[in-house]
Amino acid sequence: MGLLDRISPRAIVTSVLLLSTVAHDVLARPSPKVPWVRNKGSTQKKISDAVKRAINGQQRRNNSEPEPECALVLTTTTIAPKTNIWAPLSDVETAGVVEWLFAQADLNLTVSENATAWDNSIILVEALWPNKTDAIAYIDANATAPTKYAHVVLNNRATETPHYADIVVGPLPVDNTTATWEPLTYPYNKQSGGGTVRNLDADSDALYSEWIYVIGASVADITLDLWNGTAAGLDNDTLDIWGIDPLWQDDGRIIRWDAFWSLPTGDFDSETLLPLGLYFKSDVTGRDPSQWAFEGWLYNNTFYATTDDFRAAWSSDSFKKNGPNVDGEWAHTDQQGTVLPLDAAPPPVTVTPAGSRFAVDREQKYVEWMDFSFYIGFTRDTGMAFYDIRYKGERILYELGLQEALAHYAGNDPMQSGTAYLDTFYGFGPYAFELVPGYDCPTYAEYLNTSFYVEETTHTHVNSICLFEYVADYPIQRHTTNHYTSVTKNTYFTVRSVSTVGNYDYTFSYSFFLDGSIAVEVRASGYIQSAYYAGNEDYGFHIHDFLSGSMHDHVLNFKADFDILGTNNSVQLLSLVPVEKSYPWSGGKKRSTMTLERSYIESEDDGRFNWAPNSATQVIVVNEAEQNAFGENRGYRVLPYTGTSHLTVENSSNLNNAGRFAEFDVQITKQKDTEPRSAHAFNSQDTFDPPVDFTKFFDGESLRNEDVVLWLNLGMHHVPHSGDLPNTVMTTAHSGIQFMPSNYFSIDESRKTVNQVRITYDEGKTSDVATFGQGIATPCALNFTPAEPDLWGYTGDIVVRKFPFDPNNPFYQTDSIV
Amino acid sequence: MGLLDRISPRAIVTSVLLLSTVAHDVLARPSPKVPWVRNKGSTQKKISDAVKRAINGQQRRNNSEPEPECALVLTTTTIAPKTNIWAPLSDVETAGVVEWLFAQADLNLTVSENATAWDNSIILVEALWPNKTDAIAYIDANATAPTKYAHVVLNNRATETPHYADIVVGPLPVDNTTATWEPLTYPYNKQSGGGTVRNLDADSDALYSEWIYVIGASVADITLDLWNGTAAGLDNDTLDIWGIDPLWQDDGRIIRWDAFWSLPTGDFDSETLLPLGLYFKSDVTGRDPSQWAFEGWLYNNTFYATTDDFRAAWSSDSFKKNGPNVDGEWAHTDQQGTVLPLDAAPPPVTVTPAGSRFAVDREQKYVEWMDFSFYIGFTRDTGMAFYDIRYKGERILYELGLQEALAHYAGNDPMQSGTAYLDTFYGFGPYAFELVPGYDCPTYAEYLNTSFYVEETTHTHVNSICLFEYVADYPIQRHTTNHYTSVTKNTYFTVRSVSTVGNYDYTFSYSFFLDGSIAVEVRASGYIQSAYYAGNEDYGFHIHDFLSGSMHDHVLNFKADFDILGTNNSVQLLSLVPVEKSYPWSGGKKRSTMTLERSYIESEDDGRFNWAPNSATQVIVVNEAEQNAFGENRGYRVLPYTGTSHLTVENSSNLNNAGRFAEFDVQITKQKDTEPRSAHAFNSQDTFDPPVDFTKFFDGESLRNEDVVLWLNLGMHHVPHSGDLPNTVMTTAHSGIQFMPSNYFSIDESRKTVNQVRITYDEGKTSDVATFGQGIATPCALNFTPAEPDLWGYTGDIVVRKFPFDPNNPFYQTDSIV
Repeated sequence: MGLLDRISPRAIVTSVLLLSTVAHDVLARPSPKVPWVRNKGSTQKKISDAVKRAINGQQRRNNSEPEPECALVLTTTTIAPKTNIWAPLSDVETAGVVEWLFAQADLNLTVSENATAWDNSIILVEALWPNKTDAIAYIDANATAPTKYAHVVLNNRATETPHYADIVVGPLPVDNTTATWEPLTYPYNKQSGGGTVRNLDADSDALYSEWIYVIGASVADITLDLWNGTAAGLDNDTLDIWGIDPLWQDDGRIIRWDAFWSLPTGDFDSETLLPLGLYFKSDVTGRDPSQWAFEGWLYNNTFYATTDDFRAAWSSDSFKKNGPNVDGEWAHTDQQGTVLPLDAAPPPVTVTPAGSRFAVDREQKYVEWMDFSFYIGFTRDTGMAFYDIRYKGERILYELGLQEALAHYAGNDPMQSGTAYLDTFYGFGPYAFELVPGYDCPTYAEYLNTSFYVEETTHTHVNSICLFEYVADYPIQRHTTNHYTSVTKNTYFTVRSVSTVGNYDYTFSYSFFLDGSIAVEVRASGYIQSAYYAGNEDYGFHIHDFLSGSMHDHVLNFKADFDILGTNNSVQLLSLVPVEKSYPWSGGKKRSTMTLERSYIESEDDGRFNWAPNSATQVIVVNEAEQNAFGENRGYRVLPYTGTSHLTVENSSNLNNAGRFAEFDVQITKQKDTEPRSAHAFNSQDTFDPPVDFTKFFDGESLRNEDVVLWLNLGMHHVPHSGDLPNTVMTTAHSGIQFMPSNYFSIDESRKTVNQVRITYDEGKTSDVATFGQGIATPCALNFTPAEPDLWGYTGDIVVRKFPFDPNNPFYQTDSIV
Repeated sequence: MGLLDRISPRAIVTSVLLLSTVAHDVLARPSPKVPWVRNKGSTQKKISDAVKRAINGQQRRNNSEPEPECALVLTTTTIAPKTNIWAPLSDVETAGVVEWLFAQADLNLTVSENATAWDNSIILVEALWPNKTDAIAYIDANATAPTKYAHVVLNNRATETPHYADIVVGPLPVDNTTATWEPLTYPYNKQSGGGTVRNLDADSDALYSEWIYVIGASVADITLDLWNGTAAGLDNDTLDIWGIDPLWQDDGRIIRWDAFWSLPTGDFDSETLLPLGLYFKSDVTGRDPSQWAFEGWLYNNTFYATTDDFRAAWSSDSFKKNGPNVDGEWAHTDQQGTVLPLDAAPPPVTVTPAGSRFAVDREQKYVEWMDFSFYIGFTRDTGMAFYDIRYKGERILYELGLQEALAHYAGNDPMQSGTAYLDTFYGFGPYAFELVPGYDCPTYAEYLNTSFYVEETTHTHVNSICLFEYVADYPIQRHTTNHYTSVTKNTYFTVRSVSTVGNYDYTFSYSFFLDGSIAVEVRASGYIQSAYYAGNEDYGFHIHDFLSGSMHDHVLNFKADFDILGTNNSVQLLSLVPVEKSYPWSGGKKRSTMTLERSYIESEDDGRFNWAPNSATQVIVVNEAEQNAFGENRGYRVLPYTGTSHLTVENSSNLNNAGRFAEFDVQITKQKDTEPRSAHAFNSQDTFDPPVDFTKFFDGESLRNEDVVLWLNLGMHHVPHSGDLPNTVMTTAHSGIQFMPSNYFSIDESRKTVNQVRITYDEGKTSDVATFGQGIATPCALNFTPAEPDLWGYTGDIVVRKFPFDPNNPFYQTDSIV
């Protein structure tokens, strides 16, 4: 719980101050995907009503119109049965940790505001999740809650070997007599480093000021000629330069390729649609820019080893100058084209005549909908996750959440070929922006805030998780005969957050259904990262003037730690196979038919595989000791829904060992407290020996009657076509998976709902309409505004300073991380 | 257009009569899937308000509450640009054909009411669809409309070789001087028969009265002992007998296996959940029951060649008597279990504050929504289909619709092993029942009626096609930066019909989206056909007392006749492939990356294939002569959506050549007027030489720059588990495919909608909310009733007699086909 949820509104109202803190580039990391992340401008703003609402734990909709007259007043609050042990640190806890860290002389820390490239600083303070062993002793039994510790990441740059250090601090709240810190190593499997990984980005300021802009300026004559602009670090630059991620790490050298891009000329975030087709290579090994080496240019598929070579070529008559990609309406998302008459009328809208039919403990981020309950956690790296998901009181999943998202490009130029974003480096938490009611989620949705640590402050995205019930356009069940029809509404519950990690907007939806099934879906929108079109027809479609829709694979890894009636689970496979077979009744003839083959995944040696061709094999997590009355294992089946994919590239030169999670559709390990996550935010910093090499999880352990964890890849192969301009559309950019009960209950659990009907008819008339006591039959008037919900409360982050701790003075800061 | 849409309401109101026609078993076919289809009871009912509404072309909702005060009065009617040449015959046309047929002495026809098993009768009169060649000359140019003909199916049983005869009659309207009939052969490819196929079901009455019930009675002592019931054709029978489909047709013999089932004891259609595990084999070759041969019993996986053998075994002490499956709450769909408190409140509901935003020509079944337009056709065999689907005035698809649906079972008993339903034998048209507003479709949906021919009458299912706009719970587009958020509503348009072919309810949804994409989805509910559980763990889960969830494959074949900017199209494949490759800039090193491989399907020899592993290959229908400004083919991509499958069984012993459409995911042919459909309703009657053997379509014709047709299989492998009891749920029983523009337009077409917003914010406040002139900003009160829409108007069929023609006396008939 952020402090914002705890301090009294009066404290805010009576002590609003405009702070004069100098704004900084709050995440000192390269952000090739997000040009605006690098903008140094920052503003702060006096606190407003939105903050007060956030502080009061009220979401926006409660502050607008009065309740429609017919809405029931449902009890939508509840008390979590246990404390949420996956909750973020409180503001007080965080501030205590930060103060304590600065008091530890051996850490040699400098406050971020004053830190240079040769100082150590704190870049993350958040809760360390409890080990599952401890957690279930608490949530399932009467053990005391696990001791809290902080997970801290230090950016140690006061050294020739700059590195990120994961450390653990605690116990919390810190107390000078008991608190200690130690390297955090057990959740990682890097061979060396003792909880640290090198920082290839330690000199990002120097990289631009002493290297990239210098090189940009050195070819200003050429860039002015080609595109009438410069990328020299000047205020009037119209060009930008940024490059590959991860950097090349072969042969002990650190190599980068950078590319020229046009800066957008309009109000839109269209830079990734404006590549210019000029690239340069640098050896940036070590911390001394004077030792860095310029290694050549690439233009129009020709490599020039030196700037002189490139300039000479450019000066020659035979030099082919390709055109620029120019910003314009084609790159802008606003309404364009003739408005269709009927489109000017309001479209259908979903409303909740009875108010919310679910209950939330906002303090504990604990949710109950129908027979489901769960806790919500949130981290900088991976954003929203779910813990202790129960159905009818029995846990189905201990943990369900994103682990990492890979966007692996390819191309005939080094920029696209060299790009394989591991997005948790940037973080899904910091980019989980405020949601737009009526668009991202229904207007009536409930919202929760999320927070993340930045430079001795906690930033809060208000209304960045939405929770809502919805009704599918099709029923969950139906059957008709010549005398009756039975139909049941398919009402479901969705929890959603959207993270815009640079150019792409990932909409994560976790939905819960009346039959006990769960769906995990990702839909992608936002701007594609495109390529300059120069003979690269083998890597994408030609979609605009000099633009290639650069081919790429999205692979999003999710952890699904199932606990089916306990932790002793197995993974059963059920395959439909064609067979020729004779039977006692087939008169000696063989019949061409099919049969089921049942088997189990015996160990991690068989734990990595793909969905079978023709979807012929079911994957079911079962409890072999818990069978239904007829001897079938009770379990949950994992089922592709709206498409999945794994990485096309084999042994990627970009990723090496940093993205091994992407290699198969389904990967199963034995749960270990030392293997909590399939990736690490800094895997890109040492791709040959990353903090987490996922393949090391597979060491032959038994998967029979063990605590199994499924690591499931969602994703899509994306070859952008012209319809991805200006933005990719979510109709077809989708991936999803479902978890469904498999012999888990004796019958379909949706039979429990009253929101079904059975109509009996005969002789041309309806003789009965059974509605099972559903609803309230009184008609009412819903208060409906066809146009916009109140969207004028959309704001930036709310920031609370942690060092010095200043809880009573939250302020807005719409800076580079917002 | 059925006559119901044309005759004046006054004519009805002034001439209502209660007809005394004796009801018949209107489809004289075996209906193993649909026990209630065989019920002989039938009722007729004086015409009611619902008919008047149907006649007035009004759907139900217009007859209930007054319009909500804030609803705009949108023009929701339109005039089709051309006559719908895929419309059904009018009542007058049908009656004319029927009268003319009875006048043709050479056809030797008897009216159905009087027809015995040794008479010829008419079983289908419907419109013969025009050849595409003629159709596009009319719809695209100024040719006159194609001459209309009737497609008639005769059930010629006045012969030792009973057969179904497809004939064509016309031109229409029939005129004694010009009308002729001739065998309809050109759309079929059967090697012999001249447009006929044998009827294996000619003696269905005798089969029961002289064979099945006789055998049932012969073991009454045993069935009474085992299950305390009989299946002897008596009024107090509590058991039922029915069997395999198709019949075994090997070695020139016609063999059937029949099984015993319990009749339901409650109000529910649960018979397919009540198998009893006793089977018998009969050789029913020929028309003389005295020549039929009983060939043995199967019980508990033991075969007994004679009844004496079986009785002897049963009488012995060692005989193992398995228990019965007993009807009960587990098999009933009504609400059961404790009602959750919040479930008693009304769930969310979607409303249309502005009324419908689409336009329908109800007379022509022509629809316009935003930039889409299309015509709807409807046939007995395959139900609803779409013609001339256009986007922005250009045709995308000439035809889109279901061809056939296969449900192929397997088991260790001959009943399940021998079942491979080809559902168009039963027909999707006759079972496209009235839809339930608020459940099958939103309450505000618009509805159309559908009609089909039965025994000299036309039956009309009122409100059996629904059309509605809906808003997805997620946007179609979004992007957020640190200073603005852009989001667009995902409003789409769906046309739906539901066919309950016996036990299963297939919900067919065709949806159209703002980006120009189209989705085809099938979701399945209803009762599974289960197996008796006796050692058949290799064929399904053990899901109730003595019940196996019998494994089966659903494969539903759809025809998608694309016309991308004309009929000269090709199918381009685009594959993502891993590659090791060096580049001018890679320093001589090979890089592990990926690339695109582009190719075309050259001919029908390569026209049958499956979706590539890891979804690595895109299938795009393109016009090679129509490229975008940058040289890419304009086209539409075909994309799996919510899962697809093809048949597991190879060379099925049940199907032989009758279900070849099910063998691959994607199958592509050159469009030919002689190959309009991939299947035929009577393929099951001669599986070795069926009317349509789909493999014969593939004869090496070029598919480059030709009029290509894609035959796409949706489907799912279904291994029912306990959650399929009482009904399968549509959350996870799904299959779908999408068609999406691929470089078809220069940018995403959803940019056209005003139902988007761009919020600009900075310094902690919103500075602009751009809404692009959308909607009407005036709040209004929606008139909403939380509980049920008016469901008391749900009725049976409306029947209009065609011979003698009696258009003014429609009546209700809730008989075996309703």
